Order: sequence, then C-alpha cells, then structure tokens
Amino acid sequence: MTVRFAVLGAGRIGQVHAKAIDADRDATLVAIADAIEPAAQSLAEFYSASVSSIDAIAASADIDAVVICTPTDMHADLIEQFAKAGKAIFCEKPIDLDVARVRTCLATVAANEATLMVAFQRRFDPDFMALKERVDSGVIGDVEMVVLTSRDPAPPPIEYIKRSGGLFRDMAIHDLDVARWLLGEPVVTVQAVASVLVDPAIAAAGDFDTANILLTTDSGRQATVNNSRRAGYGYDQRIEVFGSKGMVSALNTHESNTVVATAEGFTQPALQDFFMTRYERAYANEIAAFVQCVKTGADPNPSGEDGLNALILADAAVQSVAQRRTIDVGIA
Amino acid sequence: MTVRFAVLGAGRIGQVHAKAIDADRDATLVAIADAIEPAAQSLAEFYSASVSSIDAIAASADIDAVVICTPTDMHADLIEQFAKAGKAIFCEKPIDLDVARVRTCLATVAANEATLMVAFQRRFDPDFMALKERVDSGVIGDVEMVVLTSRDPAPPPIEYIKRSGGLFRDMAIHDLDVARWLLGEPVVTVQAVASVLVDPAIAAAGDFDTANILLTTDSGRQATVNNSRRAGYGYDQRIEVFGSKGMVSALNTHESNTVVATAEGFTQPALQDFFMTRYERAYANEIAAFVQCVKTGADPNPSGEDGLNALILADAAVQSVAQRRTIDVGIA
Amino acid sequence: MTVRFAVLGAGRIGQVHAKAIDADRDATLVAIADAIEPAAQSLAEFYSASVSSIDAIAASADIDAVVICTPTDMHADLIEQFAKAGKAIFCEKPIDLDVARVRTCLATVAANEATLMVAFQRRFDPDFMALKERVDSGVIGDVEMVVLTSRDPAPPPIEYIKRSGGLFRDMAIHDLDVARWLLGEPVVTVQAVASVLVDPAIAAAGDFDTANILLTTDSGRQATVNNSRRAGYGYDQRIEVFGSKGMVSALNTHESNTVVATAEGFTQPALQDFFMTRYERAYANEIAAFVQCVKTGADPNPSGEDGLNALILADAAVQSVAQRRTIDVGIA
Amino acid sequence: MTVRFAVLGAGRIGQVHAKAIDADRDATLVAIADAIEPAAQSLAEFYSASVSSIDAIAASADIDAVVICTPTDMHADLIEQFAKAGKAIFCEKPIDLDVARVRTCLATVAANEATLMVAFQRRFDPDFMALKERVDSGVIGDVEMVVLTSRDPAPPPIEYIKRSGGLFRDMAIHDLDVARWLLGEPVVTVQAVASVLVDPAIAAAGDFDTANILLTTDSGRQATVNNSRRAGYGYDQRIEVFGSKGMVSALNTHESNTVVATAEGFTQPALQDFFMTRYERAYANEIAAFVQCVKTGADPNPSGEDGLNALILADAAVQSVAQRRTIDVGIA
Repeated sequence: MTVRFAVLGAGRIGQVHAKAIDADRDATLVAIADAIEPAAQSLAEFYSASVSSIDAIAASADIDAVVICTPTDMHADLIEQFAKAGKAIFCEKPIDLDVARVRTCLATVAANEATLMVAFQRRFDPDFMALKERVDSGVIGDVEMVVLTSRDPAPPPIEYIKRSGGLFRDMAIHDLDVARWLLGEPVVTVQAVASVLVDPAIAAAGDFDTANILLTTDSGRQATVNNSRRAGYGYDQRIEVFGSKGMVSALNTHESNTVVATAEGFTQPALQDFFMTRYERAYANEIAAFVQCVKTGADPNPSGEDGLNALILADAAVQSVAQRRTIDVGIA
Repeated sequence: MTVRFAVLGAGRIGQVHAKAIDADRDATLVAIADAIEPAAQSLAEFYSASVSSIDAIAASADIDAVVICTPTDMHADLIEQFAKAGKAIFCEKPIDLDVARVRTCLATVAANEATLMVAFQRRFDPDFMALKERVDSGVIGDVEMVVLTSRDPAPPPIEYIKRSGGLFRDMAIHDLDVARWLLGEPVVTVQAVASVLVDPAIAAAGDFDTANILLTTDSGRQATVNNSRRAGYGYDQRIEVFGSKGMVSALNTHESNTVVATAEGFTQPALQDFFMTRYERAYANEIAAFVQCVKTGADPNPSGEDGLNALILADAAVQSVAQRRTIDVGIA
Repeated sequence: MTVRFAVLGAGRIGQVHAKAIDADRDATLVAIADAIEPAAQSLAEFYSASVSSIDAIAASADIDAVVICTPTDMHADLIEQFAKAGKAIFCEKPIDLDVARVRTCLATVAANEATLMVAFQRRFDPDFMALKERVDSGVIGDVEMVVLTSRDPAPPPIEYIKRSGGLFRDMAIHDLDVARWLLGEPVVTVQAVASVLVDPAIAAAGDFDTANILLTTDSGRQATVNNSRRAGYGYDQRIEVFGSKGMVSALNTHESNTVVATAEGFTQPALQDFFMTRYERAYANEIAAFVQCVKTGADPNPSGEDGLNALILADAAVQSVAQRRTIDVGIA
Repeated sequence: MTVRFAVLGAGRIGQVHAKAIDADRDATLVAIADAIEPAAQSLAEFYSASVSSIDAIAASADIDAVVICTPTDMHADLIEQFAKAGKAIFCEKPIDLDVARVRTCLATVAANEATLMVAFQRRFDPDFMALKERVDSGVIGDVEMVVLTSRDPAPPPIEYIKRSGGLFRDMAIHDLDVARWLLGEPVVTVQAVASVLVDPAIAAAGDFDTANILLTTDSGRQATVNNSRRAGYGYDQRIEVFGSKGMVSALNTHESNTVVATAEGFTQPALQDFFMTRYERAYANEIAAFVQCVKTGADPNPSGEDGLNALILADAAVQSVAQRRTIDVGIA
C-alpha cells in the first residue's frame, strides 16, 4: 500500500512535510490546499501533485491521509472534518490553545475511530531517539530526574508572539511533551517561574521570554525545563536523564564537527540555529512513522491525548506563575 | 608577616586545612586542638605543631588565626569566643543551623570588628573561578539564568543525615551560595520540590535525597539547582551561566583525561568521586585567600553574611516544599 | 538547463550516485547501463529511467553526462569513449591502476576538451569542507603539517583486496588526495612503512593492512597518513592541519550524539561504520558540484590530474616500502 | 627509612625536584650544590637544607641519593662519580649527547651496581599512566600503532638550541622514550623528515623545528612522532595507541575546564603552555617512584638503558634525514 496524502497549508512547515512525504517510499503526495492559491500551485508543481480545496480533499476517494499545517485556529475544526471523512490525520501542534476545545475535538476523533497523530517532532530526532532507547534499556536504572535545556536562537516576531498562546503553550509545550515521554510516569504537579529579560515588547504583549518549569510525578520523579527565547550561540536543545545507576544525555548539534585552536582557545562552531535544519531528520522520521501507522493500523504516537496532556501542563505552568504556587494537574 | 594558625578539630577537614596552611608561604601551623587527644597529637606531630586547648589558643599571643573544624553545634560559640579574643576566624559551614543563632553570632563578630570567613570552598575551585572571571568579563552579556548540577556520588551514613540539618541546609547550601555568587543580584523568591528516590531510610530520617530548587532575583534572573545524594558515575559538579550574549559552563573533572574506543563506544573514565580530591585545589586556594585577608585586612569573601544568606535560602526551600508555594525571602 | 545523466554500473556506488542525481534540482537521471540486466532494470525502474547500453548512451543526443561506476579496468576506456562522444564525465577513482595508462587517457580527454571529474568524495564532506574553509581563511596562518587518520572498520573480502591495486592505491589514495588538497603545495617526497597486522591472508595476497606515509613539499611542509584496514570502534576519519598560528581539526562522526554515564565511565557510541553512511552528504555534494561544472563550464575539481597525482603518490609509497628510502616524485 | 637527598644544580628543574623531595613523606632534602653560590643558598634556605659541594656530597655518609640537574656535559662524569661513591642517582636526560660516552658511563654504573634512573617524566604523567594501564589491560587488544603529537608552545632561545644536540636529541627524545614504552617491542627501524618552518635562525644554527619520525618494530608495529617547536594554542601533548580491538588516547590539558559559547562558537581555553605546569604532577610522581626504588631496591624505570636507547633512536632519526633512507637500529 502506498499512502496517498494531501497537505493542507503550503507554508514553511507544509513544505517540510511535503518533502518528507515525497521521500518516503510508502507515501505519495497527491494534493495541496492553501488559501493562497500561488503558494499551493508552486508546491503542487514541484511534487507533481494537484491543487485542490479542503472540501474536495475530504470528499476524495483518492486521499488516505491529510497533514494539517494551517493556522492554529483551524486545527480542531479540520481534525473533526477529516475524522468524519475517514481520513488519517497528522496535525501540527497544538490541536487548539483551549483545553476544552481539544477535549471535544478528541471526542469526535474517538467517535469516528479516526487515526490522529500530533506533531511533536522531537520524539523522532535521531539523538533523542537514541537517548530514549538507552533509558528504556535500563542502563541508567530507574529514571529519577529529567533536565531539559531548550533555548531558541532569537525571539519570533512580536506579531507571532501575540497569537502564539504564550511561551508555555507555544514553546515549552514541546519540552513538556518530551518530559512526559521520558519520565515514564504521569505528571502530577507543576511549578514555574517566568520573566522578561530579552525584549520589553514581549512583556507589552503579555508574554514571557525566560522561564523555568518544575514537574513531579506521583512517585517523586522530577523534571525541569529551562526556556529562553534567545541563545546567542544557536539553537540550544539538550536532554539529560538521571537514573538510579547513571545518566544519559543528548548533546547539541554544531554547524560542523570542527575545532580551531589558536592562542584564543579551542573553538567549535556555534549550534545549528534554525529549527528546520536542526530537526530536519526528525521531520522526515515523523512522517515516516505516521505513514507506518496508517499502513499497519498501529496507534499513532504521539497521540491526540499526548497533545492534550502537554497543553494541560502548559496551562498549569501559566497558572503557577500567576498564583505563585504548586499546581496539581491530576494525571497528565 | 607570617600568619600563625591554630586548627580546631583534627578530623578529615581539619587535616585538609592543616595541609593547606603548611603549603602556604605566608602561613604557619602552630597549634592543634581536638577533644580526641591522639587525633590532635598525630596531626600536630606531622606538621611540627603543638597540641593545645581551645582556651589556651584563645589566650595565646602567638596565634593570629583559627580554623574551626569542630562539630557544627560548636561553631557559633567558638566564633564568638575567638572574635572576642581578637583572632581572625575561618569557619567551616554552616555557622549554625538556626538563622537566629547565626544572626546573634554575626552581631558579636561585628561588635568585635573580627575577621570572619565562611568556608564555601567552591568559590575557590579553579574551574569555577575561571567561569566567574568570564561572567564578570561581560563576554556573555548580562546574566539571565544559572543552572547548577550538584550530585553526590553516594549518600552519607544515615547517622550523618540525621544531624545534618537536611538536604537543603547540608548539601544544597553550597549550591545556593554559588547561585548567589553568580546571579549578581540578591535572590527574592525560592521554590523547591524534594523527594526520596535513593533510600527509604532517608525518608525515615525525615529528609530528602532528590531535589530541585528555583530562585529568582528582583529583575527576573533565575537559577536552578538540581541535587541528588547519588550519582552512579561520580561526583557531578557542573555550572552553566546563560547571559544575553551567550553561555559559559564549567565542566566535570574525570578520573583521567583518557578515552578508550572499542566496539562498545568511546569511554572516558567516571568522575572523581570524592569531594576532597575534586576540590583539593579549591581548599588550598581558600586558605590562601583567607591568609591574604588576614595579612592585608581585606574583607573576607565569602563573609559571615554570605553564610547567613545561603542558610536563609535553604530554609526557604524547606518551607516551599512543605507549603507548596513560592517563598519570598526579602533580600538574600 | 537540467543536466541529463546516464549511470554506467548499477552496483552499490552507482545506486548512491543515482540517488544524488535524482535529488539534485538541476539534474535528471535518464538512463542506466549494466552488464547485469536485472540490476540495470531495478535501478532504472526506481527512478523512472530507461535501461540502455553503453554505446547507445554514447550515441544519444539526450544524454549530457555520464557517471562511470563500472569495474576499475573499464574506467580508462570508457572515459576515452565518452570524451570522444562529447559527454561530461564523472568517474569513480581510480582512472586506472597504471600511471602510464592514466596519462594516455588524460591526453585523450584533453584532446577532446572533455569535462572530467574524478570521484574523491571526501573533498565534499561538510566537515572537511568546513576545515578547508578555515585553513583558507588564514586563521591558522601558513600550513605546516597535515595529519590524516584513516582507518576502515574492517578489511574488505580477500578477493577484493587481490584486485584492488593494494592498500596504497586502493585506500590511501583518498588520503593522499586530501593531503594534496590541504598542503597547498605540490608534494616532492614520499616515504612509507607498511606491515600486516590484521590478517595473514592479506600478506598472502601480497598486500599490507597497516601503513604510515610521510609526504613533504618543496618548502618543507609535511603530511602523515596513518591507515589500517581495521578499527574496532568504527570508521575513523580525522584530519588535523597545523599552521603557524594554530591548528584546525575535523572530528569523527559517532552513531549518535549521546553520552551514557555510569560507574564504568562516560560512553559515546562508536563511530558510524559504513562509508556510505559516513559520506552520505559528501556523495550528494559531489554530484551537485559536478552538475554545476557541467552547467557553468567551470573546471571540475578534483580533476583528472588530481586523480593522476594521487596515484603517483601511491606508487611512490609502494616503492618506498620496497626500497626502504625516500622517493622523489617530482611534482605531484 | 627516609631517603636523604642532595640536589646538584639549583636551577629551574633542580627547584622542581627539590619541591618534590620535600613533599615526599619518605624523602628529605639535605644538601644543595650549585656553582652559583647564591642560587644554592636560596634553595637551601627555603627547604632548611645546607649548601655543600659535589665532592663533599659524594663523601658524605648522610646522603643516600643525588638528583643531577647540572648542565648536560657534566651528567656522565657526575653519574660515574656518584656510582663509585655508592649513591643512588637520578639524572636529568640526557646522560650524554654521545652514544659512546653513554655506554662507558653505563658500564661504570653496572660495575658499581649503582641505582640509576633517567628522568623521562612523561612516563609518570597521570593521564599517560592511565593510558598505559589501559593498554596493558588488554582492552584494545595487541598494540599495532602509536601516534604521538608533541609540539612546544614556542621555540627556546637560539643559544639553547645551539647547545641542545638538536631537535631529535633534545625534544623528540622524550617522545621516542614514550614510543618505546608503549610499543611493547624493541624498535628496529627509524625514518624521519625535518624542516625549518618556524624560524630561519634555527636553520642557521644547523637545527630543525618541524619533524616527523616513523618507527617500526620487528613484528611490524609502527609509531609516528610529530614535533614542532611552535604551537600557537599551547603545549600540545597527546598520545593515541591503536590496537587490534580498539584505541586509547590521552587528551590535552586546557588552562581550565570551561566553555564559553557565543555567536563566535564554543570556546575552551588554550592548553597549559608551560612544561612545568603541564607536567607538575609527573615530576612529583617521578621523584616518588625513584624514592621507592631506593627504599626497596627495585630496578629504576626508566633505566640508564632506556636513556641510551632513546638516544640511539634520536641519532638514527638524524641519520635518516641526512641520508634519506630507513635506518636499522638493531634493537632499541
């Protein structure tokens, strides 16, 4: 079986997924939809796909799966439309910025027994996968603490920040998903601090640019996330997992694997500073995993519930900052 | 001027300081006091010093400075006695486990215009000093976040833990001092989580073995401390300081600077796993710094107030765990 | 202009180049030829190309360029045939194992003003390119010494070794080209030692498995190459260039960028151990560079002369081992 | 037993050994001799030793061992004098620059059954010792190749070079000893190249500043030494040993274990750039090893024969450069 795809949204991330679909031997790109016709046209031409509309794609017998890369506020509606249309759905994060809306959306997905995978691409990064494999192997014993360092090279445009849902729901949500993935137990409490150190315009927009989050599980495992919207030395993406017998870490990726040694010292290049370069292989692996779910009927991972739970933790972080206390999240 | 020293307490740490005094060209070891006579005898003989009593040392015109390495509950009394006796005082941390007692002790020190240095040896570790120098140079811009990883190789005996004042006051206090040293601003809030993952006997003793602490300053700078009483791979002691222009980190010290490469991978040795080996040069530098303060009349650094403030933060961490909320510490 | 390609030889390396051609926006794969019909068929189908014969390809007006991946003893004849046919030629190394034959072949290429690029893919490895860029930038001053470490994970089959031309012409030739590329001056002398430490069957086949080569240039620059047919820890491919002001090095590529720390030490995974994985991006960059030469008429680099000169150095190394003396190579 | 020492020669290296003797619990420094009286005086005062003459020391019943740190041309005579006087002898390298003179000197040592240790301090460097231990453990299988990188921060004064015996006998001799130590088999052939790239004054003095040496053993093991009188980034001292199962390497020592990350990259400090700092612990370990030989009667290691053999290899390297051929050294 070759999985036949439509991509909804021909922007930057839509192009990344189109490329991954094209490169996958078990997938083929059939149709592109985008409100901006020339964008759809250009992408469709490059991959010999056709331009279509959302409704036509939903109705088409030729399409097995859709990749939703539209603006966030359309995600939940589109998921519901395609769940009802019997298509497998891969949706960019988040499903929605509102937990209640996410819940109703997931109910529709469940009612239609639809396949839904949420795009947390970091779970598919080769280094993070290698780290997870080592954690699962038991080489470090039982997991006790997870430390995530996640710092963007530079803040996004202020217009983006205003619509983003804020640092915790937009940026930290990736780390919260990774923390859940690695802790091996549901999270029960959330604490956070946040400040504005990078750009006062971010404060004016009601957001933060610098934060730390503390998570605990029922058995007392702990995770920390440190976030900043700025890292002068590139895109800082590191993981450490501490266990009863040892530690495993995933290191950063530099622009090249070279060192210059002079009287000034030994210098490796700065880090890859663009998320699409840093996670290029993760994006390809992610689509490949989704394709296999569609082919084999396996449960998608990360699932819609993973998307929901990460959002619940992000909301709790927001609440902890505001209320200056530990937030109980039930089970997330 | 050669500073003439007495060491009070001939145990493990007293021996370390005796060695550092002997190696310092500007210092000489004159007397040793210890409740256990043979311990004092043995140390005194090794360095050609004499055995004496605390009161005789306080009264002696031949002694310029004392190093207090007795059990913790004697620290404050001894500081007061020697402040009144006009001796310069170097005291192992903590001054006392009770903040109120520390305050009255420091008042006595101030009233007698005595010189008091509190032993936070990490400030004198060559790698940490090099890190501090880089932070101060401005190369990373303004400090925004400090991340401290501090994990002991193995828990101390349970009897030690019972008298220790607990994880925060005994172990984290070093990290809290380092955080204060590096943040460059007073700490205003403290949050913490703590659990027992290493040994249930530690819970039975009313203590924790695994913790994270979150600090903030008035301008929004943040610091995290992650602590564990166990690290299977050695004594994990790392610092990262993030600034507006970059990051500086101090890395761990391995048992040797070698790598073995086989089909199993590329393996560096585990970390130095004993604090006296890891901080050997720090202890020597620390005494040397104290000697220079005594010679030149410069203010000791870290001071008694530094000892007090680190204890205030440790107490706030204890309170935050118990009350599950952010604790305001005024200025510490 | 889209460069229209035929691939001659559908084996392992032919497949690598076919994939690179397919991925290049400025190239298209038109035809495949292979003595083994099903091999040609399978590769042609995968890329929607057609199966053809060498003579038909030479005669076809639809083909701009050929990639020669046939057995070595056909290389020179094919280069001459396609030079006369007016096609641009990309040929796997070596042009021939015999220097005289290479010279007549290059004369034919010159007489026909044909475009010929010889496949030394290491010049296109991203890390080695970054190293070269730094050398060229002057940051390390004038080049003084080049040290190349080049060790295969495991020896090839003995049948391969018998036809390979020997360690120096088959394996070291890549390093000799890299040394020439980095020294920035022609090589004038060659010394070498060689032994059999890996497998006596290699000695029985008249070859070596462990060698060191010493090169010098006219001004006294030096290069060393250390080679082994075995490296238990993966495919060891490192470069160090020492200059008047400093050093630049290109490090190895590990299977993943992770570290496991336990009581046994801190372990990074072994090296990528397959040359096609290790040099995957180099192969793609190499074809892309050739495509641009064909499009723009730029001189190919590495050229046929580079192929000749590397072979001259390999021959000199063979001679040095046999005669136990320094070999003058004129200018290579 | 406490070994009672005299130090002959109160210069830079004499001071290093005096400090090591003073720090050793099993040794005591009794006397200092130096042609320059104030130098002897100052060193003697610092360690509460007495100033004496060479002849008085030889005659003294109070002296067990001497450390010879005089100019090189006195070494052999002094060794013979003290061998006859029944003192244990620790001598700075080289015994003499002339192989024949070394042989007669060693004959005298043997005839008097004297204890003689030659100062190749690198064998006592903690990292090199850890490397040797791993090689001996069998973890990398049988040794196949040794690669030594040994580059001074900056050339010594030209006056020093003129009297030094040349690059191979003065500088490379340390590496030749390390190569012998690690190869585990006698060296049978030597090749070398040498040039002047650092300073034409070195050529004018008849010496080289940049060299490579190739050694082989009877079974075909190989070693390379790369030397330069200049390394802009500090004192470059590295070892790699390749075996049938893997590799072990000893890395460089940086000024501190810190990294600064900015837009310019990730920078570790330059290397420790002074041999006395770099090998501080090696010098202390070396004297401690000699003290134990004197106490226990164990054979010194490195021995006089090790000094002789390293010199034979250095001479062969000189000869190889001049004659442009492989030099057979018998067994060294």
